[in-house]
Amino acid sequence: MHVIVVYDISIERVNDIKKLLKKYLNWVQNSVFEGELTLGRMKELEIDIGKVIDKENDSVILYSINNPIWIKKKIIGKEKATTENII
Amino acid sequence: MHVIVVYDISIERVNDIKKLLKKYLNWVQNSVFEGELTLGRMKELEIDIGKVIDKENDSVILYSINNPIWIKKKIIGKEKATTENII
Repeated sequence: MHVIVVYDISIERVNDIKKLLKKYLNWVQNSVFEGELTLGRMKELEIDIGKVIDKENDSVILYSINNPIWIKKKIIGKEKATTENII
Repeated sequence: MHVIVVYDISIERVNDIKKLLKKYLNWVQNSVFEGELTLGRMKELEIDIGKVIDKENDSVILYSINNPIWIKKKIIGKEKATTENII
């Protein structure tokens, strides 16, 4: 399935969540990762996110779409993911 | 169609993009908006975004899905949109 992850996380944990998401997905933009995952990997990712974040204050949203052709992506401005490698 | 917008924008223009996106969509999380738009409204939004951003440096991604049932949303941690109204 195609997965988009966005996070809104306290600065102390930003590096941890980035490091974790990089294992599963591709960096797209500031606080956005995207990629293809099996249902099993998706479940693993959810568990790992739960270990890294402070559930009282941090927020992570996972959008998933079974068929990637169902989702269209349009970029306005600079495509950050291909021009910068800063994570 | 269901639309998710994420942005990575220079601090000077963050308030402008938030104000613009609020006219079309609902705030979900830091730099993420979401909602239903007709194709016409989607085109208008794309034009308006082009007027607000600096295309050399800023980046806005619009994900669109024709049928909202195709997309699943899972929140881990705090659901920011319903607990805070800070935009």
